[in-house]
Amino acid sequence: MKNSAILLVQCPDRRGLDAAIANFVYQHEGNILHFEEHQVGEKGFYLARVEWDLNGFQLDINDFPRQFTPIAEEFDMQWRLALGSYRSRVAIFVSKYDHCLVDLLYRQRNGELACEIPLIISNHADAKRHADFHGIPYHIVPVTKENKPQAEQQQLELLRKNEIDLIVLARYMQVLSTDFIRHYPQQIINIHHSFLPAFVGAKPHHQAYERGVKLIGATAHYVTAVLDDGPIIEQGVARISHRDTLEDLVEKGRDMERVVLSRAVRWHIENRILLYANKTVIFE
Amino acid sequence: MKNSAILLVQCPDRRGLDAAIANFVYQHEGNILHFEEHQVGEKGFYLARVEWDLNGFQLDINDFPRQFTPIAEEFDMQWRLALGSYRSRVAIFVSKYDHCLVDLLYRQRNGELACEIPLIISNHADAKRHADFHGIPYHIVPVTKENKPQAEQQQLELLRKNEIDLIVLARYMQVLSTDFIRHYPQQIINIHHSFLPAFVGAKPHHQAYERGVKLIGATAHYVTAVLDDGPIIEQGVARISHRDTLEDLVEKGRDMERVVLSRAVRWHIENRILLYANKTVIFE
Amino acid sequence: MKNSAILLVQCPDRRGLDAAIANFVYQHEGNILHFEEHQVGEKGFYLARVEWDLNGFQLDINDFPRQFTPIAEEFDMQWRLALGSYRSRVAIFVSKYDHCLVDLLYRQRNGELACEIPLIISNHADAKRHADFHGIPYHIVPVTKENKPQAEQQQLELLRKNEIDLIVLARYMQVLSTDFIRHYPQQIINIHHSFLPAFVGAKPHHQAYERGVKLIGATAHYVTAVLDDGPIIEQGVARISHRDTLEDLVEKGRDMERVVLSRAVRWHIENRILLYANKTVIFE
Amino acid sequence: MKNSAILLVQCPDRRGLDAAIANFVYQHEGNILHFEEHQVGEKGFYLARVEWDLNGFQLDINDFPRQFTPIAEEFDMQWRLALGSYRSRVAIFVSKYDHCLVDLLYRQRNGELACEIPLIISNHADAKRHADFHGIPYHIVPVTKENKPQAEQQQLELLRKNEIDLIVLARYMQVLSTDFIRHYPQQIINIHHSFLPAFVGAKPHHQAYERGVKLIGATAHYVTAVLDDGPIIEQGVARISHRDTLEDLVEKGRDMERVVLSRAVRWHIENRILLYANKTVIFE
Repeated sequence: MKNSAILLVQCPDRRGLDAAIANFVYQHEGNILHFEEHQVGEKGFYLARVEWDLNGFQLDINDFPRQFTPIAEEFDMQWRLALGSYRSRVAIFVSKYDHCLVDLLYRQRNGELACEIPLIISNHADAKRHADFHGIPYHIVPVTKENKPQAEQQQLELLRKNEIDLIVLARYMQVLSTDFIRHYPQQIINIHHSFLPAFVGAKPHHQAYERGVKLIGATAHYVTAVLDDGPIIEQGVARISHRDTLEDLVEKGRDMERVVLSRAVRWHIENRILLYANKTVIFE
Repeated sequence: MKNSAILLVQCPDRRGLDAAIANFVYQHEGNILHFEEHQVGEKGFYLARVEWDLNGFQLDINDFPRQFTPIAEEFDMQWRLALGSYRSRVAIFVSKYDHCLVDLLYRQRNGELACEIPLIISNHADAKRHADFHGIPYHIVPVTKENKPQAEQQQLELLRKNEIDLIVLARYMQVLSTDFIRHYPQQIINIHHSFLPAFVGAKPHHQAYERGVKLIGATAHYVTAVLDDGPIIEQGVARISHRDTLEDLVEKGRDMERVVLSRAVRWHIENRILLYANKTVIFE
Repeated sequence: MKNSAILLVQCPDRRGLDAAIANFVYQHEGNILHFEEHQVGEKGFYLARVEWDLNGFQLDINDFPRQFTPIAEEFDMQWRLALGSYRSRVAIFVSKYDHCLVDLLYRQRNGELACEIPLIISNHADAKRHADFHGIPYHIVPVTKENKPQAEQQQLELLRKNEIDLIVLARYMQVLSTDFIRHYPQQIINIHHSFLPAFVGAKPHHQAYERGVKLIGATAHYVTAVLDDGPIIEQGVARISHRDTLEDLVEKGRDMERVVLSRAVRWHIENRILLYANKTVIFE
Repeated sequence: MKNSAILLVQCPDRRGLDAAIANFVYQHEGNILHFEEHQVGEKGFYLARVEWDLNGFQLDINDFPRQFTPIAEEFDMQWRLALGSYRSRVAIFVSKYDHCLVDLLYRQRNGELACEIPLIISNHADAKRHADFHGIPYHIVPVTKENKPQAEQQQLELLRKNEIDLIVLARYMQVLSTDFIRHYPQQIINIHHSFLPAFVGAKPHHQAYERGVKLIGATAHYVTAVLDDGPIIEQGVARISHRDTLEDLVEKGRDMERVVLSRAVRWHIENRILLYANKTVIFE
């Protein structure tokens, strides 16, 4: 857990932006650990992630907003400050396929994912034993066409009570309502088992098998109101051949989904993602 | 150039198929070099590629059809015989982007592609110097909305005169008419610069850039009457990031297109591809 | 679990081999599911894997050796028969790093690895809770320089009692003695966390970090008397950059090790591996 | 061709480094296009690449060294300034295998490699026709054990006369003398057709084939006095199987070598490489 501060900035590009940010940190005796910026040339847009060591930093971090606001206003910045020591509070949603869940729990346990996982929500009991193994509360919220609004209310309450920062849909097979999504803008990550935008919607492996593609994919993306259309965070592919049955596709898909989803979650909780024009900028 | 025979077979699966084929070759003292078969389990279908050494083979290969027909009929086979020593006659179609053309010519020259390239057809003069360098006739056939039928007639005549077996669309930017395609069923290979079925049609790199994907692709496929919908032969992807401009996508795409297209052409001319249910089986 | 028989054959190449095998199966009314053969051209060597459906097969499989021996002798075959329905008995050895162990247990549980895992042996207690979760006996056998011969005796006894067919060293940090290895020829698979033959021996990630490579690797191989020198079964690589610390290498390595090792184990228990000249032939 | 300035810096890490550089550029009204820095944490070392637009920059770039020196001295910087508009002068050395040469010439022609190629040097006449096609002088300098010192003198003279900045060994099969190398420190890039440090020295594909690896590699590196030991710039791998003959390895290797070498050359001429502890930092 690093005792660092992370500043995420986006604004119109202008001379002096890097200098203004670097000077601010330096004036308060912060040592910059990473300074990464990206410019969307054709649109004159500037995006940056700056991380500095808080050891020796002379400004009370609670006072940061007040002190930084004049600079932010001068440059018309949208900005956000995060602490390297803060552990995001992540809720995992799962249905019956448990490979992504098991993988995320393992990575959290071994320190790869520096977050808390205060609860798991599922519409089935199947994955409960994994939650038990890790000592994480497992809430079964059955969802049907009829009870969906109430079910989502129940879920939202659980999330609120647990002060959740990020929802991970780890092969959760229910479509969330627009209303639900609105409560967690850019805070819901889904794994879709295809190379989006190919094979949107249900049964992408079946679609891939029918079409006879030579590579199958997986895509982690933020959830928005339009199905499988949110900003893409990470993608992966695996080679298949005519020897692979539909079941082989499913198996090869699992390995990819695990890696792609866990990478997306990690970038999110480490504050490495900026959103721009329905796309993500990843400051690795 | 191998002095071998290649038998491609597809038929309903039945006991004794492998034995019947292997026996036939053995009875005439052929030594099998490769025996590869694939079964589409759920459909009860059998596909095979058998290659044997013609040195010492006691049957006049011209007499093969007559001798093999009883077996073929017994098992209801669709079959095709090819000679390893035959060099396919390939026509390359190109427009302005010449990277695939240059690559194919280089591979043909160094022996990777064991084929003849008797002519190149283009709607532009740009790539002519590469044809000249390799001493290959280059025919400029301009295509407009108005003259398209006549232009295609001219192309078909050139192809016929040169006894072409395979047409390779190496970034040829004109859509071929259904009528043209009918003359060369499963004998036209196209390279599309996306990961099909994502980004069908025009400007796939622009579409990919707008959607914010993290991998771009290339697809080699047989051309059918429906645009970008024919059986996929090979696909590849390359990783991109937010740092890549649209121009970078185009450059990264080029490397992939070269590799993917040349692999597809090679498998075709080496008689390694069988078609089944709008899919390809590749006997590598 | 398939009710099939798998015949693995290697011998000098000769006319009629495919026919002899296919005929034998056909005579007893077996339906061949997969017939794959490979010839090492320059050496005149033939290797094959033939799998056929036992439903309707008219030969008592226990009588197979007696019936097949004349053919085998005629062609000078080394051969082995396996049953698709047999579940290999696999022992996993592990030390403190548990990612490969956890992965293998998960895959066995979900059916990807069709084997039994009757026991886990470790020189540490750390991974015991995973064994307990899956209800698998976990034997702690501490190993020191002094007690090594006795420790290995104890291990061998456990293996014998459990009728183990395959030993998987899932990041087991002790070097096995030549004597131990002799008991399980071509039955011990190790995962080495480098791209062999680069970075043999201890701390390969440190070596890779020092050398400044741009890709790190993992290698699954059979264990022989010479350290990290046995026949390679599978390899994988992952891209790294200057941004990656030594710890990042370790993390990226884990994902690869899991995939590479599990693939090797799967091929072994599905009887897809033939050994030839210190190399493996994988009939995928 | 960008009208930009690129500053490359390495020095001990200290508070205020980013601010000092960004301020300097800003004071002279430069607009920073890319600011990338990397810290080697455990060693307290700082490396950076800063690129800014020269349009509107108020400092005569020839006066940059004088103005920047006080800052550089304060922070104990090693630094180098390059102009985005400068086209490096690259000499290509080649023997008989011409695939890398042909590829580099093609990429230079289409604008991917923004450099001049004033000459090609070879110990054989074979590749001359490619030089002629592109109108580039081709110097044949035969090298034998006996004449090597004189041959290298002749090469050095050609390089000097052509004011060469970078030498690319595009499958040049002669080992350069330590004396030769000393004239071009960190200015000679070689492509080795293996995944270094595996298979150092002669005939790496033969070595890979014998060892039975499942992936083959290619490595672009700076040439130093120790054979195949210089800082690695880029690496790639390709999957092979038992079906691949030695010749197939060579063919699969070619595709990789092209991509890996051209990438390394591009990063070098775009001033994206910093050297540190026999490793490269690539500011992509």
